[in-house]
Amino acid sequence: MKWPSHGSNPQFLFKAMGLTLPQAYLDFSANINPLGPPKVLKENWNDIYNRIATYPDPYALTLKNLISQKEQIPPESLLVGNGGAEIIYLIARMLEGKSILLAHPTFSEYEQACRAHQCEIISCRLEAPDFKLNLDQIIEKLPEAGAMFFCQPNNPTGIAYSVFDILKLIEACEKRQSLFILDEAFYDFLTEKQSLITYINEFSNLIIIRSLTKMFAIPGLRLGYAAAHPDIIARLQSLQPHWSTNAVAIAAGELCIKEEAFIRETKDYISRERETLFTYLKKQKFRFTASKVNFYLLQDPYIEDQFPFFEFLLRHSIIPRHTFNFAGLSGKWLRLAVRSSEENRRLMEVLDRWRMHHH
Amino acid sequence: MKWPSHGSNPQFLFKAMGLTLPQAYLDFSANINPLGPPKVLKENWNDIYNRIATYPDPYALTLKNLISQKEQIPPESLLVGNGGAEIIYLIARMLEGKSILLAHPTFSEYEQACRAHQCEIISCRLEAPDFKLNLDQIIEKLPEAGAMFFCQPNNPTGIAYSVFDILKLIEACEKRQSLFILDEAFYDFLTEKQSLITYINEFSNLIIIRSLTKMFAIPGLRLGYAAAHPDIIARLQSLQPHWSTNAVAIAAGELCIKEEAFIRETKDYISRERETLFTYLKKQKFRFTASKVNFYLLQDPYIEDQFPFFEFLLRHSIIPRHTFNFAGLSGKWLRLAVRSSEENRRLMEVLDRWRMHHH
Repeated sequence: MKWPSHGSNPQFLFKAMGLTLPQAYLDFSANINPLGPPKVLKENWNDIYNRIATYPDPYALTLKNLISQKEQIPPESLLVGNGGAEIIYLIARMLEGKSILLAHPTFSEYEQACRAHQCEIISCRLEAPDFKLNLDQIIEKLPEAGAMFFCQPNNPTGIAYSVFDILKLIEACEKRQSLFILDEAFYDFLTEKQSLITYINEFSNLIIIRSLTKMFAIPGLRLGYAAAHPDIIARLQSLQPHWSTNAVAIAAGELCIKEEAFIRETKDYISRERETLFTYLKKQKFRFTASKVNFYLLQDPYIEDQFPFFEFLLRHSIIPRHTFNFAGLSGKWLRLAVRSSEENRRLMEVLDRWRMHHH
Repeated sequence: MKWPSHGSNPQFLFKAMGLTLPQAYLDFSANINPLGPPKVLKENWNDIYNRIATYPDPYALTLKNLISQKEQIPPESLLVGNGGAEIIYLIARMLEGKSILLAHPTFSEYEQACRAHQCEIISCRLEAPDFKLNLDQIIEKLPEAGAMFFCQPNNPTGIAYSVFDILKLIEACEKRQSLFILDEAFYDFLTEKQSLITYINEFSNLIIIRSLTKMFAIPGLRLGYAAAHPDIIARLQSLQPHWSTNAVAIAAGELCIKEEAFIRETKDYISRERETLFTYLKKQKFRFTASKVNFYLLQDPYIEDQFPFFEFLLRHSIIPRHTFNFAGLSGKWLRLAVRSSEENRRLMEVLDRWRMHHH
């Protein structure tokens, strides 16, 4: 079976499985803020319309200045892009032909983008069920690698690793003149902020990737950015097509970046919901990862092959993310987003029904 | 002086020239439909809002099917992208390291994208003031080239070449197993439709590039597509980042593609305005290209260096497109868009004032 390479767009998953997409379903496959976009977007939507008829600012200067102020890094250290996906592709393009170290399981796009640019992939493992970081094992493989991608908190597990450990990895890469690319797409869901973005001022081999589409629930608009030493930013920009980030995304970003209260509200909401879910999952003897963010891995330890469990959820209009294309998971877990109270309650009801017959 | 590499975003031009951007100005530097976006976009803008919170369809299937029906080519022969600029970059990426033939002057992005992918540029000339196509000269240079980009109607001159001549070029490329990339970004402004898009069914070396941002005045949204043999499309798609085209652009495209009456109205409007302008320019003894679309090259034959003319227009809040980065023009012409009646009238008033002192 050819599995869709990402969550969201569930029509492709149902098609691949030969199932009919139900009229109503709950999509737990995309890790998007369940509160939806901040109100300020809807309120300004008519003003934003006026931006469509002129070219976007190719440098997104206003947005860059806002990010620069918020993150305390210079605007020359920023590149705004057409979603995190474009930033990953630009980096892969810059790394063309090199060997890339990945700690699996992690976001599948790094490998896909690197392979599209003739890179060789070197793997090390974060071992289930704890997915602990084995620093020695990684550092041992570093000499072969021209760069390492790392996702913090990690997708698909939701686990946030020790900042000190990550700093050690950055330093180990620096000694070998390798780039360290740290994807912080979900960092703003962490209750305790643990970003390493200001370290770009210290480490010239560090690239931070950020996304604005998860926290602000605007994946349809595409908006992300890279932060790094100005020389790296200039190189990435030279590879980026002109006007790559559309004007609606830029306008939305300028509004969203100031939404501090919305971010706090989201974190509180997710954290409450996650706790409720995890208490339930523990009680019902499901296995799950120690996620600190808005998604987690789930497994029924009573069965070896998780496929019937996956299918059961789909048939009950609950759409998890399969993990067949996460190296090191091979479908043995399901990834689920923390959704709204109502949706999470519905999930627990369906899990109850599953548990009635499988224990 | 470092000239901005494109029209639009006039703040960069004024900055480069050490001038202050006036509060009110008329932008003739971007070749966008002066009627603005079709009404259907404003009418559906609130519905479109609902698309921002979910991921875009990465294949833009609905839009592809609409284009497929309209253009009579199979959906597998289509790739929707983040503006014509992304399509050009994807093609340049596919052609990495090859020699690329360009007939100058033409759209600067081909050269820029190809150079970013280590291509060598081979040039032939369309000689001023007529910019005629010298087939023999081009065909002579073809054996050295792995591909040729051609823009029809050509940007920046607005000239539409003989379809038969272009077919000869496509065939000559085919014989040498070279790709022929035909950019039809402005084809829909031609009074007589002369697209070669259906020829992708005949020539497996032909790629057509289309843009939806010029006719439908949505450059802020970014939307374009490529049409070619399914094998080429599959190759380009493998190089494209996931979810590259945003959901607002896709939604707008689905609405715009059906706007036949709007396209006819635009063509009539542009054609009337262009005729009025050209009658005036001839009378006032300006030199201009035989454009068939919504922009043209302008030159004052009474002066050698056109820079004072350019500066005069800018100081009168008229923003033309400089041509310093069009190989073969080197600033000796200005490019102007055909704008609204009112704007074109204002342009003629300013040209009157210039002519009073320069003849």
